[in-house]
Amino acid sequence: MTRSSFDIEKERQIIVNDLESHINSFAPKHEFKEIYDYAVLPPGKAFRPLLTKALAKDLNKSFDQRVLENLSYFSSAVEIHHSYTLVHDDMPCMDDDETRRGKPATHIKYGQWKALLAGDGLLIMSFGLCSKINSKNLKEVMRIFSHATGPKGLIHGQCLDLSEQMNDSFSNLIETHKLKTARLIQLALLGGAILSKEDLSLKMAKDIARIGYSLGVNFQLLDDLTELTEKKLTEHELAINPWLRDESKENCLNFLSRELKRTKELVKQYKLENLETVLEMYYMKIRSLLNNDMQMVSEHTKMDLNPIMLLLDLSA
Amino acid sequence: MTRSSFDIEKERQIIVNDLESHINSFAPKHEFKEIYDYAVLPPGKAFRPLLTKALAKDLNKSFDQRVLENLSYFSSAVEIHHSYTLVHDDMPCMDDDETRRGKPATHIKYGQWKALLAGDGLLIMSFGLCSKINSKNLKEVMRIFSHATGPKGLIHGQCLDLSEQMNDSFSNLIETHKLKTARLIQLALLGGAILSKEDLSLKMAKDIARIGYSLGVNFQLLDDLTELTEKKLTEHELAINPWLRDESKENCLNFLSRELKRTKELVKQYKLENLETVLEMYYMKIRSLLNNDMQMVSEHTKMDLNPIMLLLDLSA
Repeated sequence: MTRSSFDIEKERQIIVNDLESHINSFAPKHEFKEIYDYAVLPPGKAFRPLLTKALAKDLNKSFDQRVLENLSYFSSAVEIHHSYTLVHDDMPCMDDDETRRGKPATHIKYGQWKALLAGDGLLIMSFGLCSKINSKNLKEVMRIFSHATGPKGLIHGQCLDLSEQMNDSFSNLIETHKLKTARLIQLALLGGAILSKEDLSLKMAKDIARIGYSLGVNFQLLDDLTELTEKKLTEHELAINPWLRDESKENCLNFLSRELKRTKELVKQYKLENLETVLEMYYMKIRSLLNNDMQMVSEHTKMDLNPIMLLLDLSA
Repeated sequence: MTRSSFDIEKERQIIVNDLESHINSFAPKHEFKEIYDYAVLPPGKAFRPLLTKALAKDLNKSFDQRVLENLSYFSSAVEIHHSYTLVHDDMPCMDDDETRRGKPATHIKYGQWKALLAGDGLLIMSFGLCSKINSKNLKEVMRIFSHATGPKGLIHGQCLDLSEQMNDSFSNLIETHKLKTARLIQLALLGGAILSKEDLSLKMAKDIARIGYSLGVNFQLLDDLTELTEKKLTEHELAINPWLRDESKENCLNFLSRELKRTKELVKQYKLENLETVLEMYYMKIRSLLNNDMQMVSEHTKMDLNPIMLLLDLSA
């Protein structure tokens, strides 16, 4: 474990309070406020805002009220943007999922037209929150926000996923994870960095983007791996899981090992102790999931996953 | 007719070229580029970008390359945002329209998931284009863009429309038109103004917002009126047309007369000759539609529409 003073539970509560108050300021009396709240709150792990806050505190030990408010706007914007993608993704014409975070998906609860429209509302709210940022880096924040989430970023990742091009090759799989998942995580980190350290060097910005890339793609590869601990997998789920496919399983293992190492090295190099605390929480959850059913995962994959388990322990 | 040198056809061609090149820069090689092009081009009347360009030229007779580029980004952003609303509006769970601008709606041509996702992509592209603006008013542009289009603006207007609260009272009707239509027109005008005249006074900004309000609500009231020239109207269309309902028909006439006068006065007061040219083109089209079938419209409404026809003639 790291020795950082980053209190995840306390930060998560601040994030929840921020989200509540920002949504309220954008839709005070409207009937859609209930839908916005429903789609965003509670925010699951609040992984992306936690990344923003942790890295911001790593790069600037004593930021003032202005920076604090900027981070509040930005981290809420990223989480609200993430929520909009879930609302639209779950709709019948997309992934057609009826459940999200243990409750009925937004379109199941409120109907399709309200889910579609509220998703659009959340999307615009995310940019509206950014526009409140008071920083010389505002233009850069808006630029990376629209790049990461837009037609060349997340949107194209969803296109590769839904068109099933994702499953055509290992490079398509990684490209999809990069765009659909890593782009938003890179955004969460980069935004936190340039808002807390407004003169961030290009070298450091690139290394932070590199961490976000590794973290985002690993996030999906680990998600596919932990999926194998579930008792009931459909034939389709088994058929598309890259850890079970001959042409990609070795690639998955090699990619994950290499990128876990890379993240670890960069986090050590820049002494990102608060970020390390957030990663440790996340890795611990993955280790615990895998440990509970390691036998089943090994039977499925027929691979030795001990090197991965070691890399998922930041104290090792 | 006014004596302005604003060449609508030439400006429209510039707008089309701008849209093409901006879409290309946001989605150069992707398969979605075809869908973005399909949804945006050709841009119908290009009414909103024409309003932006005309007012910008009224307020600044000789702007430099930087302002010219800013106006290109902004006017395309508004038109692309307008296009996204049409793509989502036409979907089966919303208005369920199969035709748009004389061709199959985007979801008919490409399927629902692509239409939903491409709509999201266009929405984000509109904010991405704004982030390219190089002006001290960037923050203000982003703020009014998200306010006009977001949960308190266009999104709430669509909610009032789709929930049919719009038809509950005349004030709900006007509120819906204000949010769903006028907000984007106000945005087109205000953005053009603060990008071409970067030190715009608050007084003038308010008067421009006033013009946008009148223009936007009138746009819908005139749309409802010209609808009555169509041969085949369904019972539902007849039942909800506010010009045919006892409780709203007088209100429509009074509102339209008052706001047409108001627009005319403000356009004269500020000598907005280029804007006047765009309005004249639009009013001429409305007059022509009404003139062709005035008898049918009069039979439907049982009202004297000559005062409206006079107000729609800016040279009168």
